[in-house]
Amino acid sequence: MGFRDRIITGWVCIIVTASAALGQTRGESEDALLAADVAWERVYVAKDLAKAVAFCDEHGSMLVPNAPIATGKEALAKAIASDFAHGDTTWHPRKVGVARSGELGYTSGTTDLTFKDASGKTVTNKGNYLTVWKKGVDGSWKVLFDSFNFE
Amino acid sequence: MGFRDRIITGWVCIIVTASAALGQTRGESEDALLAADVAWERVYVAKDLAKAVAFCDEHGSMLVPNAPIATGKEALAKAIASDFAHGDTTWHPRKVGVARSGELGYTSGTTDLTFKDASGKTVTNKGNYLTVWKKGVDGSWKVLFDSFNFE
Repeated sequence: MGFRDRIITGWVCIIVTASAALGQTRGESEDALLAADVAWERVYVAKDLAKAVAFCDEHGSMLVPNAPIATGKEALAKAIASDFAHGDTTWHPRKVGVARSGELGYTSGTTDLTFKDASGKTVTNKGNYLTVWKKGVDGSWKVLFDSFNFE
Repeated sequence: MGFRDRIITGWVCIIVTASAALGQTRGESEDALLAADVAWERVYVAKDLAKAVAFCDEHGSMLVPNAPIATGKEALAKAIASDFAHGDTTWHPRKVGVARSGELGYTSGTTDLTFKDASGKTVTNKGNYLTVWKKGVDGSWKVLFDSFNFE
């Protein structure tokens, strides 16, 4: 393949052991991007709005089902706050890729949204996501686009 | 910015004139990727299944609302055929970016799905899409991930 992308068959909470155990040959760039994906999920699970927004590029966009596209920090903060209010979101990356030049990459995987429906019953919607990341001026990965939908 | 990404303010059917008229400084890589996005949309509008699938990487994935993720040519062919059967899809790219190394890029924009509802009334669902592209061994851009959802 023209650039390094690898299928992630292990849970990413055990990136290092999974890489070793499964004989994967992901490089440092892919591991760093996976770590950013996992770190973003952690602040998302904690519903820390400021930290969740801080992972996004200032011109970043979220493509949210049943909502207009959100672009820029202010719109992203509203979209993420709405997501937090709606239920509990988790995700697990399954694929990662970084361009050879190291400044553009993607993660993709599964996501779950758990919430109480109108009758008070707990429901989990299963879905998939695709995130495009760019490396910021400080060398950290930032979310340029995040898109998800539910099965 | 670490890599060249530009907001597209003109319709892409007039890429060349738009680039000139709007004083944009997209490079050749971005224009080539935009051209691939537009070419894919044309075969999609024509509902040419073989050509639409041929734009996809053999390990490509489509993240389709209300459906499992489709990965690989066979699953992609089914997902695209289902899309063709459901209605008429069009899209217009709004942003494009290519890594400095030239082998990974993205397009994003708006999409419309027009179909007849149960009562026979024509309905148009407006949405947004995000596509990740990789350059194939033959130098052509191939769809690695395509995700969309509706507002």
